[in-house]
Amino acid sequence: MPEIIPDDSVGLVQPEKILFNQPLELACGRTLDQYHLMVETYGELNEARSNAILICHALSGNHHVAGYNSLDDRKPGWWDSAIGPGKPIDTNKFFVIGLNNLGGCHGSSGPNQTNPDTNKPYGPDFPLMTVADWVNSQARLADHFGIEQWAAVIGGSLGGMQALQWSIDYPQRLRHCMVIAAAPKLSAQNIAFNEVARQAISKDPQFHNGHYYEQDEVPKVGLMLARMLGHITYLSDDGMRDKFGRELREGKISFDFNPQFEVESYLRYQGERFSTEFDANTYLLMTKALDYYDPAADFNHDLPAALKRALCKFMVISFTTDWRFSPERSRAITDALVEAGKQVSYAEIDSPQGHDAFLIPIPRYMEIFRAYMKRVEADIPKTSGETA
Amino acid sequence: MPEIIPDDSVGLVQPEKILFNQPLELACGRTLDQYHLMVETYGELNEARSNAILICHALSGNHHVAGYNSLDDRKPGWWDSAIGPGKPIDTNKFFVIGLNNLGGCHGSSGPNQTNPDTNKPYGPDFPLMTVADWVNSQARLADHFGIEQWAAVIGGSLGGMQALQWSIDYPQRLRHCMVIAAAPKLSAQNIAFNEVARQAISKDPQFHNGHYYEQDEVPKVGLMLARMLGHITYLSDDGMRDKFGRELREGKISFDFNPQFEVESYLRYQGERFSTEFDANTYLLMTKALDYYDPAADFNHDLPAALKRALCKFMVISFTTDWRFSPERSRAITDALVEAGKQVSYAEIDSPQGHDAFLIPIPRYMEIFRAYMKRVEADIPKTSGETA
Repeated sequence: MPEIIPDDSVGLVQPEKILFNQPLELACGRTLDQYHLMVETYGELNEARSNAILICHALSGNHHVAGYNSLDDRKPGWWDSAIGPGKPIDTNKFFVIGLNNLGGCHGSSGPNQTNPDTNKPYGPDFPLMTVADWVNSQARLADHFGIEQWAAVIGGSLGGMQALQWSIDYPQRLRHCMVIAAAPKLSAQNIAFNEVARQAISKDPQFHNGHYYEQDEVPKVGLMLARMLGHITYLSDDGMRDKFGRELREGKISFDFNPQFEVESYLRYQGERFSTEFDANTYLLMTKALDYYDPAADFNHDLPAALKRALCKFMVISFTTDWRFSPERSRAITDALVEAGKQVSYAEIDSPQGHDAFLIPIPRYMEIFRAYMKRVEADIPKTSGETA
Repeated sequence: MPEIIPDDSVGLVQPEKILFNQPLELACGRTLDQYHLMVETYGELNEARSNAILICHALSGNHHVAGYNSLDDRKPGWWDSAIGPGKPIDTNKFFVIGLNNLGGCHGSSGPNQTNPDTNKPYGPDFPLMTVADWVNSQARLADHFGIEQWAAVIGGSLGGMQALQWSIDYPQRLRHCMVIAAAPKLSAQNIAFNEVARQAISKDPQFHNGHYYEQDEVPKVGLMLARMLGHITYLSDDGMRDKFGRELREGKISFDFNPQFEVESYLRYQGERFSTEFDANTYLLMTKALDYYDPAADFNHDLPAALKRALCKFMVISFTTDWRFSPERSRAITDALVEAGKQVSYAEIDSPQGHDAFLIPIPRYMEIFRAYMKRVEADIPKTSGETA
């Protein structure tokens, strides 16, 4: 429980589950006849519906982006550091929407939710999703709120890929796009790490080909391994040295397989906690969406050609020790935007925290974030007729 | 089968299993009353027994370093590129010994070998080993061959750590030490990767707490995951891009969990092959020896103080894209040797192959290796009385 809800928090918030009845065609060729999206909103939508910001989440994120769902919550939403009254995404100015993506495991339609056609969990029958599919579903969400054009679409990591895809697929529907700690596509090494995680899950005897719900089991070990591995790629070598070094838990080596070093017990704890909280089929689906992402593929592998369609302004941010999606990858996005003739700002933030840095309120990062959001605010049309 | 055995190969070679009856005290406090070492030798030991070279192996290596054990062998020993007539370690000049370390799974005493006290496989009861334990057992091996002083002790990766430890623990017994692609100790990130591999193996239901021999099972999935993960850390991001890129196996995405990208099928193949060839308890033991390695620990964490004991000359080699044991780590060894007042040469080899580069005959690497071995040759005393 937070001792006291801070003044710059959005406070107590409640999620809302929204039903969409219009069929959604997916990249895989299948159609979702209906689906739910779990959503939270912060701040007030102005009369012109022109001050809305969409937050796209990363691999294990969800709709609970800021504030507390109850006074018993140990922690606020996953990006509380950036969103709230007076924070970079200032909820006194903006109306902010967070959602759980389709295929997620926090209330939106996904493997762990009931398939209305069968009255059983979708399980592995839930269709595999692409970033473009998510963007399409998010466009329906914008329609639902009567939002014709986002003031900004913002995301980090896989969320940054969704923001980028918005600029290509719905160029008229956003004025600003903020792409943080992302990449224009996964490298072979990124795909390789995802594949190890997928094998860990799908080869777990408790996975039952994805039908573990019926067995009242969970592929805990597979999920634990996937998360341990993920964690290593979210932190930097330097960051791990600063955080754990070679600190011994008992002060000296013991010759057994109990955790000897602090980093071992940290990873085991993180992995075990995650394995009780996250859905294995969703994990598989999210890593596949990452692997598939390649917006240039439909443009003869010419990223600037893909980005020529965009009409918004861009902010791209990277972190020096992020080796999952290194600054080089963000510069590739920035260079392609420049080549496509787009307005783009780029900032590389010095930080030892690796990929995780995008979730951490590092002072220079927050300053730049805040400064850019002032530009987003300045571009809010004052009447519903005026668009940028 | 090799089409024809090349002229610069050591040719057909046979391993030899040597029994050691003198008890070996180990760092863990236990004692091996007797043990076997599986060994191969190449070249001829000179009369003065002064031209011997010890090759120390890395995590998954063994005694079969060069040549072929049979005409049916698909591949030669693991470091055939460096060892043979006219090769950098010239078997016309040197007598070369390769061994399988204690705790290994290729014939030396280890988890998959019979415990003479019980007539069952040692399994998880085989004691955990340290690099210093291995060096002690290798000193007995030198005694067995009547080798008072090695012309050189040479190793890459975990093998380089053994070479370095030789210089500290038996300073009189080697004239040269070559430490390739190694580190003075593991980083928190290195330990973290090892821990994920260990969890993958030990949480595999077929591991049976290490007693899988009795069950006639093998923790195949755990070993496969460990190897897949290992492979990612042996290759560089750039190297993977060059080797696999984002090449699709079928030319296009299909929305299922079959391998889509070349890198996925490569890793699955490598992992599955390894899981049928390697012993899980040995894998655990080897990663633990890596984690424990810290030669400065007994010297108040002062590496130069530890290395002051050394009397040999050193060659340290690193590879630009090795991120498992980066050039920075080799420079730390080199700097400590300089600070300790030792003769040390250092070379950083440009190569896209990551950690694996140490096994690859990269031209500049082989030239430097050859040049250094000329110095080792020049330092061979001509009579048994003369030592360097």
